[in-house]
Amino acid sequence: MYDLVIIGAGPAGLTAAIYATRANLNTIMIEKGAPGGQIVNTNEIENYTGYQKLSGGDLALNMFNHAMALGANYQFGDVKTITKEHDIFKVITETETYEAKAVIIASGMLPRTLGVENEEQLKSNGISWCAICDGPIYKGEDVIVVGGGNSAVEESIYLASLVNHLTIIQNLAELTADKKAIDILSKAKNVTVHYETLVDKFLVGENGKLAGAVVKDKNGKLTTIEAKGVFEYIGWNPVTYMVKEMGVTDKWGYMLTDEKMATSVPGLFGAGDVRQKQIRQVVTATSDGAIAVQNVLKYLEARD
Amino acid sequence: MYDLVIIGAGPAGLTAAIYATRANLNTIMIEKGAPGGQIVNTNEIENYTGYQKLSGGDLALNMFNHAMALGANYQFGDVKTITKEHDIFKVITETETYEAKAVIIASGMLPRTLGVENEEQLKSNGISWCAICDGPIYKGEDVIVVGGGNSAVEESIYLASLVNHLTIIQNLAELTADKKAIDILSKAKNVTVHYETLVDKFLVGENGKLAGAVVKDKNGKLTTIEAKGVFEYIGWNPVTYMVKEMGVTDKWGYMLTDEKMATSVPGLFGAGDVRQKQIRQVVTATSDGAIAVQNVLKYLEARD
Repeated sequence: MYDLVIIGAGPAGLTAAIYATRANLNTIMIEKGAPGGQIVNTNEIENYTGYQKLSGGDLALNMFNHAMALGANYQFGDVKTITKEHDIFKVITETETYEAKAVIIASGMLPRTLGVENEEQLKSNGISWCAICDGPIYKGEDVIVVGGGNSAVEESIYLASLVNHLTIIQNLAELTADKKAIDILSKAKNVTVHYETLVDKFLVGENGKLAGAVVKDKNGKLTTIEAKGVFEYIGWNPVTYMVKEMGVTDKWGYMLTDEKMATSVPGLFGAGDVRQKQIRQVVTATSDGAIAVQNVLKYLEARD
Repeated sequence: MYDLVIIGAGPAGLTAAIYATRANLNTIMIEKGAPGGQIVNTNEIENYTGYQKLSGGDLALNMFNHAMALGANYQFGDVKTITKEHDIFKVITETETYEAKAVIIASGMLPRTLGVENEEQLKSNGISWCAICDGPIYKGEDVIVVGGGNSAVEESIYLASLVNHLTIIQNLAELTADKKAIDILSKAKNVTVHYETLVDKFLVGENGKLAGAVVKDKNGKLTTIEAKGVFEYIGWNPVTYMVKEMGVTDKWGYMLTDEKMATSVPGLFGAGDVRQKQIRQVVTATSDGAIAVQNVLKYLEARD
């Protein structure tokens, strides 16, 4: 029986493993992909405090090695289901069942993609899913935002303050963000919106990086838009299928937690991007992981 | 006129400077001590994710250099007062007045100390103010906790799970923590409490590190307690004198903020240890700094 099972080995899960190991909890961390989570697919990170600039892969490796050096247990596995009976959680993968007194879900989320030509190749070579992270790389350049909901419009407001020109590609006839955000965006003088338009394909430059996009309007007319960066805001899928029967997620699948990272199920915690939260950054994920473990400790003290 | 003045250059303030600089905000960070805040006085940090082990001074330097490399403005100064009139903040030091549209207070807190012999010398050489941070260093050793309130008792529960033996030195005739915490502590078999007892002095070992403490009971009897570590939980002083007229602090002086780090004064934010919050760690401070800046951006967008 483990004291704690951590699901996911991104910045939140790895930080939870560091804090749990230091606190002598008998812990195992289970991850189905490469350790590091979303940052593994990030070309360059310059907003993780203390590291001026490094690749996402290097930061992931530093974080993973840190947890391992402290003696954390790590196991490859895809958690399918979690159940709780008689105060014991069962964490079930295709091949194993782990019993635990407490569980932290730090499984993150995956970006939805357009599925168009050259998109896969240009991931972290011009196509991004995080304006806070990557917007400053494109100061003074032209960029494209795909989408028209709250995230797309809010991040467009931010990007417009940094870049030379911003083009928004929206599939609907209007932006669907809150009116207040749309009003603020409309004041920006360097923003063009293409309505009822789809991305047909992305263009690869001679340097192998993004050169722009070809878009198609409702009449089928194709237009080429040059850009150094594309930000896709067409939604995310939080990875919460393993807790979908537990009533701890919102209608989009994000985990509902309080400020202690606790869900409505005692002993079940959430941390990092998988949570319903305002700002998803490496620094906010590590914070969640630390807070979750401190409250796991309090839960275990009261339980035992 | 600055977009943003950041007060304090610890992990929260430095992260705020990194995020603000990347977002093109005209920002200045003002600090009255050495950049780095509390971590400057920390011998070794092993729970800042990504750095397996480094001195607090090195982490402070890495964080400061990171902010500077991105072009952050840094100014030495002791902020005495902040006022807000006509949507403009005035941040007033002994020699300067800075005007700003928004302000983040990240000025941290300072530990209260006992003022006894050898205490100053043993700071970060055996005397600590953070069990989460430094407790794991003393796995299997004997340690002393000074204090008997909620922090002292809650951290003693945690420490008792790690160390060989824990002695609590409490000046009153009882522990003043919540009953639930006291009940949990009473189950620990390796804890001794000395009531109505004061620390007379700390003892320095031949290696220059802490060797123990001499304590004095109500009858004046002196007892020597050997220990490798001492944790003082006799209270903290949040550094909020500059906002004491603004109605944004609780009765202990901690800043009252919401999850967006906003205070009740529009445009005034708090971040890091200075906030009323549950867990004070480097990772939670950096998170606060990032969240505060994203909400400064939203405030400025709506304001301008």
